[in-house]
Amino acid sequence: MKRPTPPIEWAGDHIRIIDQTLLPEEVKVVEIRSANQAIDAIQRLAIRGAPALGAFGSLALVVAMDEVRPDSLSQALSRLEECRTLIGDARPTAVNLRWAVDRVIDEATKDVGDLVSLRNALVREAQAVAAEDEAACNEIGRLGHKLLRDANVIGTHCNAGRLATAGTGTALAPMYAKAQAGEPLQVLASETRPLLQGARLTAWELDDAGIDVTVVPDSAMASTVLSGQVDAYIVGADRIAANGDTANKIGTVGHALAAREAGIPFYIAAPTSTIDFELKSGEHIEIEQRDMLEVHEIRGSRLTPAGVSALNPAFDVTPNHLITAIITEVGVLRAPFKDSIADALSRVGEL
Amino acid sequence: MKRPTPPIEWAGDHIRIIDQTLLPEEVKVVEIRSANQAIDAIQRLAIRGAPALGAFGSLALVVAMDEVRPDSLSQALSRLEECRTLIGDARPTAVNLRWAVDRVIDEATKDVGDLVSLRNALVREAQAVAAEDEAACNEIGRLGHKLLRDANVIGTHCNAGRLATAGTGTALAPMYAKAQAGEPLQVLASETRPLLQGARLTAWELDDAGIDVTVVPDSAMASTVLSGQVDAYIVGADRIAANGDTANKIGTVGHALAAREAGIPFYIAAPTSTIDFELKSGEHIEIEQRDMLEVHEIRGSRLTPAGVSALNPAFDVTPNHLITAIITEVGVLRAPFKDSIADALSRVGEL
Repeated sequence: MKRPTPPIEWAGDHIRIIDQTLLPEEVKVVEIRSANQAIDAIQRLAIRGAPALGAFGSLALVVAMDEVRPDSLSQALSRLEECRTLIGDARPTAVNLRWAVDRVIDEATKDVGDLVSLRNALVREAQAVAAEDEAACNEIGRLGHKLLRDANVIGTHCNAGRLATAGTGTALAPMYAKAQAGEPLQVLASETRPLLQGARLTAWELDDAGIDVTVVPDSAMASTVLSGQVDAYIVGADRIAANGDTANKIGTVGHALAAREAGIPFYIAAPTSTIDFELKSGEHIEIEQRDMLEVHEIRGSRLTPAGVSALNPAFDVTPNHLITAIITEVGVLRAPFKDSIADALSRVGEL
Repeated sequence: MKRPTPPIEWAGDHIRIIDQTLLPEEVKVVEIRSANQAIDAIQRLAIRGAPALGAFGSLALVVAMDEVRPDSLSQALSRLEECRTLIGDARPTAVNLRWAVDRVIDEATKDVGDLVSLRNALVREAQAVAAEDEAACNEIGRLGHKLLRDANVIGTHCNAGRLATAGTGTALAPMYAKAQAGEPLQVLASETRPLLQGARLTAWELDDAGIDVTVVPDSAMASTVLSGQVDAYIVGADRIAANGDTANKIGTVGHALAAREAGIPFYIAAPTSTIDFELKSGEHIEIEQRDMLEVHEIRGSRLTPAGVSALNPAFDVTPNHLITAIITEVGVLRAPFKDSIADALSRVGEL
């Protein structure tokens, strides 16, 4: 497997990211040098994927502080507090973003000395977020690989791969592990309207790594699964409640219903940072509603009649009873999720 | 409600149809003057919808016979036999096309006199197919309206409306009846990738009739239904087996699974000509696989990376246990469908 341009890279005084809105046609690297550029990149999905948003949001804090050229510690600290909200809340459903921004600010400002040491601490902590995510991906890949050893045809939704993390991905990490082990593998990537992260991003990164990937319209996954052509499903997560209910890209719950009907496993793959233990269940998860224009138009070409309305929720919630297991960096969590999640969080020191 | 340009019109020596591939941007009427033009229109979905294909295929027989300028009855009859296959099999899943072509040829050639009377009989029988479909739509609308009296928000998939029939539609006929009765109504039209018949056609024809219609990505219907925002589903059918298993536009079975999970009714609306009593169950229904390019590209713009594969089944099969009732022109059929379907067919003289 070759390793393509890293989706996120720290360049010392700016962040370099692949603009994912332009994939697969163009691999364009853009430079992020301000908080506004960072927020814009998050909101227009130039960078996306819950774990990648954590790594990116962390580095964006450094850029945002540099941008105002603070000449006192208090000015720097108040800029960071401002960015805790500005950057931390740039996408409401992605809990890792909020989590990483809080962590980096809290850790870096704990024993604050001068401006230089504050900046060094921010960079160090942001890089630690990315490094831990990379390690989490590897472990998720290893655990998922064991579960999916006999699965030759695997369905996934949206993109939870290299492009969505600082490592080999969450849902896609086991695919890379299977490919590396030389096991037979065909990935069915649902196209993931409206923004086509499956058709564009998952197809691109797997094909780029030499893995056999087939794009399937969202509408065609259910019958493909019901006809017995798929051995297992694995998807990522944007936010997991304390009871295991999981918010992920819109469409996920439909795939989970089809998996249950077909009797195949439905796995969630996510680092523990995706778990929001404050949320008792999925009904409390705020669902981001995005611009209708994403449904009405594609590449500037109008699909629907002028004047009709559209729905465009970015996420849906899959109830825990449709989930076979949640694969995290500290183990494979199974029902009752309330217990297994609490146990996992206590192991990573988050509870 | 205004009545727009008729989707299919017989002009004495040619057929006039709205080219549905150009909707909603352009309402372009094209003239069909040969069998090849008719087959091309069917295969590229300029005309689509199972009942509309029946009406169109019937008229196409007249055009196909005229085209060869037969100078003997036997020449005309052999041309019709040729077209029984050429036109009747132009789309394998649409049973009404096969049914209508067989019926028109068989009826028109029963007591054949000369060329002129043969042609008159063909036109008469083809127009009868359309007139009966229009009457069937009205009756389906009336029966569906009774079932959906208390449903204010109704989900549908693909297009089973005026554009898909020679009347007010099958699944959409009750919507027109509700609107005419002044009842509150919001229709959620799933966009229906890859060819977007929901976003383009259902949205266009309902909006054109002044009915409140909202386009929903296919991936977003499940969570919308599960969140309790939808009162009922109604969709059309391309082929119904003797046990009620129903082939309809790809994606239908996913909607049916969501409807069952949410506890809302899932209705099929179709004329009895859609029933293929020879087929014992859905597993015997041949599913048309369409060109991958419909998934890879939209309006000539490439969505997926070059070289990756795609699946593009045109239909899926919804098993009878997910169907609340089948609304036909001779009544509302309920489980056990084997009995109710046999009874309905015997009432229309098809058994």
